[in-house]
Amino acid sequence: MADADARIDALVERIRLLEDKAAIQETLSAYGPAVDAGDADAVGALWTEDAVYDIDIRVMEGNDAITEMVRTRPHQDYITEGCGHLMDPVHIRVDGDTAVATCHSLLLRRNPDSDSFRVWRVTANRFDMRRVDGTWKIARRTARVLDGSEEARALLARASR
Amino acid sequence: MADADARIDALVERIRLLEDKAAIQETLSAYGPAVDAGDADAVGALWTEDAVYDIDIRVMEGNDAITEMVRTRPHQDYITEGCGHLMDPVHIRVDGDTAVATCHSLLLRRNPDSDSFRVWRVTANRFDMRRVDGTWKIARRTARVLDGSEEARALLARASR
Amino acid sequence: MADADARIDALVERIRLLEDKAAIQETLSAYGPAVDAGDADAVGALWTEDAVYDIDIRVMEGNDAITEMVRTRPHQDYITEGCGHLMDPVHIRVDGDTAVATCHSLLLRRNPDSDSFRVWRVTANRFDMRRVDGTWKIARRTARVLDGSEEARALLARASR
Repeated sequence: MADADARIDALVERIRLLEDKAAIQETLSAYGPAVDAGDADAVGALWTEDAVYDIDIRVMEGNDAITEMVRTRPHQDYITEGCGHLMDPVHIRVDGDTAVATCHSLLLRRNPDSDSFRVWRVTANRFDMRRVDGTWKIARRTARVLDGSEEARALLARASR
Repeated sequence: MADADARIDALVERIRLLEDKAAIQETLSAYGPAVDAGDADAVGALWTEDAVYDIDIRVMEGNDAITEMVRTRPHQDYITEGCGHLMDPVHIRVDGDTAVATCHSLLLRRNPDSDSFRVWRVTANRFDMRRVDGTWKIARRTARVLDGSEEARALLARASR
Repeated sequence: MADADARIDALVERIRLLEDKAAIQETLSAYGPAVDAGDADAVGALWTEDAVYDIDIRVMEGNDAITEMVRTRPHQDYITEGCGHLMDPVHIRVDGDTAVATCHSLLLRRNPDSDSFRVWRVTANRFDMRRVDGTWKIARRTARVLDGSEEARALLARASR
């Protein structure tokens, strides 16, 4: 009996790690749809209260600053003109109640005068994730355009470390 | 003993949900390769018999109409000229034998006179999935180009609901 | 007791398959960040010693040839100018200690004289994976640009077979 219990305990640990990865995938795959819908509340629900969004040109501090970005220009202009915020498959490392997720993102914008979109930004992303009341949230997102800079490369190099 | 059985029952439920998500990923990640291969039978196998594919410009009703699309022009022209149908990571919500999967898709086409591709369409997608004889299939795909329209935004906003 | 043990054995098998798929995802999602960071050692760690990387214009044989590619031109030029190597969600079939993973990849390069990137290559990929000392590695990558050729289509058509 104790033996069965010990075996079950071991499985619980393994299932928990798989569930954590699936939950982090769920949080991050909800980001693009929410931000392209312009749904500021749905975006805000994905970040911790004290979240930081650090992009090339500015740093947003706090959940309110991030949702304000969604509600205002230029973000709303991008949506109205036609845009897509996409990611590629995310590399995830879980460590207890924190995790690091690394991926690329694309910001595509519609060309108003031709039947096509342009690739405006290709960006390196690091998401520092934190489990809050059982839900995985984004505590910090660091994003650097892949313009050849050392900073973007260093961010990507830290994915597995 | 009963206690171990109850614990095992609980794990079975958790594993089943993870397996469902993995199976839905498998169905959806098979779509792009099948459609770019022009393999109409492989595409058809991913949809239910009564499937509906609702895109901006028309609605295809039934598995035969969908595979016919793969077999004919303009789809075959896209393939011959060079194209790629890509998705980004899919947001999945499972509810028993149905599920909703939301993501972006890209349709990239080769530029015949330059060494490059163009982004022809960036699209919001909702896949209503159904379990049929133990296999997850696409029962309905709704796709709207992200051209600033309210309809595309509303589709994305429903991802988590 | 035996009954609980038999049930646990069955769960172990199911969890192992889910873990294998997650581990393959981890290997493949580490590729883009490592190659865009220009981190040749991190790239090399993802391939078997006898790995083969077969692309349209040449075949690299052995781990050293692959890491040499990362260290040298033209790859280093792409990085300095700004580039992103992205994948889309990977279709995975596991068979014991080997697996086949199929997906698209994108190579995006920054346009030096405009605020944008161009899609240089859209490619069909097949990764033949092998478990080596408990770690999933790339034993062979076959990549063909989606330029309408029969070879690229055939590669994609084999995803589920």
